[in-house]
Amino acid sequence: MKISIKSLVSPNIRNLRAYNAKEIPCRVKLDANESPYGFEITDKILKSIKTNRYPDPEAKALKKIISKNLWLTPENILFGNGSDELIYYLITVFGGPVLYPVPTFSMYGIISQALGEKRIEVPLDNDFDLNLEKILTAIRKQKPKLIFLSSPNNPTGNCFSSERILKIVDASLRASKPGIVVIDEAYQPFSSEKGFLPMLSDYKNLVILRTLSKIGFAGLRIGFMIADKEVINEVNKVRLPFNLNSISQAVAAGLIKNLKTIKLHIGLITSERERLLNELWKIRGIKPYPSEANFILFKVKNSDKIYYRLLKKGVLARNMRGTVDGCLRVTVGTKKETNIFIKVLKEVMK
Amino acid sequence: MKISIKSLVSPNIRNLRAYNAKEIPCRVKLDANESPYGFEITDKILKSIKTNRYPDPEAKALKKIISKNLWLTPENILFGNGSDELIYYLITVFGGPVLYPVPTFSMYGIISQALGEKRIEVPLDNDFDLNLEKILTAIRKQKPKLIFLSSPNNPTGNCFSSERILKIVDASLRASKPGIVVIDEAYQPFSSEKGFLPMLSDYKNLVILRTLSKIGFAGLRIGFMIADKEVINEVNKVRLPFNLNSISQAVAAGLIKNLKTIKLHIGLITSERERLLNELWKIRGIKPYPSEANFILFKVKNSDKIYYRLLKKGVLARNMRGTVDGCLRVTVGTKKETNIFIKVLKEVMK
Repeated sequence: MKISIKSLVSPNIRNLRAYNAKEIPCRVKLDANESPYGFEITDKILKSIKTNRYPDPEAKALKKIISKNLWLTPENILFGNGSDELIYYLITVFGGPVLYPVPTFSMYGIISQALGEKRIEVPLDNDFDLNLEKILTAIRKQKPKLIFLSSPNNPTGNCFSSERILKIVDASLRASKPGIVVIDEAYQPFSSEKGFLPMLSDYKNLVILRTLSKIGFAGLRIGFMIADKEVINEVNKVRLPFNLNSISQAVAAGLIKNLKTIKLHIGLITSERERLLNELWKIRGIKPYPSEANFILFKVKNSDKIYYRLLKKGVLARNMRGTVDGCLRVTVGTKKETNIFIKVLKEVMK
Repeated sequence: MKISIKSLVSPNIRNLRAYNAKEIPCRVKLDANESPYGFEITDKILKSIKTNRYPDPEAKALKKIISKNLWLTPENILFGNGSDELIYYLITVFGGPVLYPVPTFSMYGIISQALGEKRIEVPLDNDFDLNLEKILTAIRKQKPKLIFLSSPNNPTGNCFSSERILKIVDASLRASKPGIVVIDEAYQPFSSEKGFLPMLSDYKNLVILRTLSKIGFAGLRIGFMIADKEVINEVNKVRLPFNLNSISQAVAAGLIKNLKTIKLHIGLITSERERLLNELWKIRGIKPYPSEANFILFKVKNSDKIYYRLLKKGVLARNMRGTVDGCLRVTVGTKKETNIFIKVLKEVMK
């Protein structure tokens, strides 16, 4: 008997397309905002792992280390299989409308759509900062249940004005139907700004997302949210009990003790970012935007053509077509990778 | 400003309670249907892992090995961060009502509730088999979008009648509003029955769940679904692109090549299960149920008291209160663990 599976799925899924994350072969990989510096997994770490036992559902050991590093209490932390999973859970728990600026990290919109929640997209202003007026009006009129603000923002690279962010958090808290504001600080370690952890005690509706993915551990899939205990409790209700596997837990707990090395890597990346920015400025026809993250967005004529020409020479950047038309985004790699990237870019611009 | 977070969450979440998966300290752990046999993670496997890079979003290497082992094509397989995540995705994609027999694996109900979908619970008959009449009537009248059948069933341990399962799959396919039938074969490796993989080509609405969790790899969190390509494509739309971390991918790919050892462990567990069953039969006041899985359900007077008395002596079983009142469920462990369990059980029954 023939049936059409597509006719059986929820209407909001029918026209959704799978997130395209195919691996593209290349020599220099600068498309995914990964750290160029990895860590070795030692035998000592592995000895503690029992493959046959379920992981600790509360990831206590890892939670203890991270809470200590960030001066937090463990009760205010919840782990996800990457921040992606926490975004999924937050939207499951609080529902929509979901408001976010555009352009920004694509998963806020994709997951809202998958879960059938209404989306409110508010364009950034000409400086890539938040359009405060429009967001405050949307809070008043459309009553978003969730607001996602990525700061530093991906793919633009800048931090949003702290003052504007706080006004949004405050307005959402005092609205007739209050909402949750999620500040996604995935790129905060590369920023000169301090981030919003110190504001947590002032705003019960504030959620902060952090991740280990950008500082050397993208392979482990460990994101975490920091929030008021009440928020943590509600999100924990929909969390799959064993969402963080044993090995990622053990490897992260074993390796992030090495804060000195992590900080060293961050220092290398941020100074390399400034050098990359300067080099980009020097190339005629390229307009790079300043960045507080581990990547740089730049405008270039014939961006599609340049993207494919780079790739043909083994250098993979991210084509921002459809998000910031006419732009490419390049991850800050090692000194050697920057040199190759700049050399090849100059060649393909000729 | 004070707000109540609970008042902000979706109504279906408000009365939900978090799945209780706290770790309970014990000497002999027989509560979670884990394999007693773990695997060593070798240096060779680890050398391939780059902590700083995102995992392969398609888990190609692992998919290739598993599809070869099960005589399937890779296009019919999709991985989840445990089967739990696939259940979450299936309910997100196809929606409710969600039908399942009771008692069964609790996550079908918990996730349906988290996602706000209607649940249809149909009690098993006196032999713990499917109540075919009632399910067929429910298919006709309540038009479930999804039906979950765990066979062998957790916590009862038996396989459902294949004939009844096929009638349900067929009825759901031919219904005025067809639905998807998910056969959860988490415990199939311990069963004398062949399972439903050979039926996949006959029924486009058939989904089979398998997992590595029960055969020595619960710590890795790897479940997978096998289904028609159209079904795979729809579920893939809501899958988080990096849901399977690099290390679990590499470790599983490296270790499940060792099919001989895995099969040896399964053989040890199933023969130990028969010995455990015989020992349980001999104890006055215990009524064990036959099992096709890696655990045994048994009835015992004062089951709460017996559960706590066992725990006090360091032996952790699962108290089925609220699911199958008056019963405990014990995982089949090593020979030594069975001996300790039987000895302690006899002591606390006195």
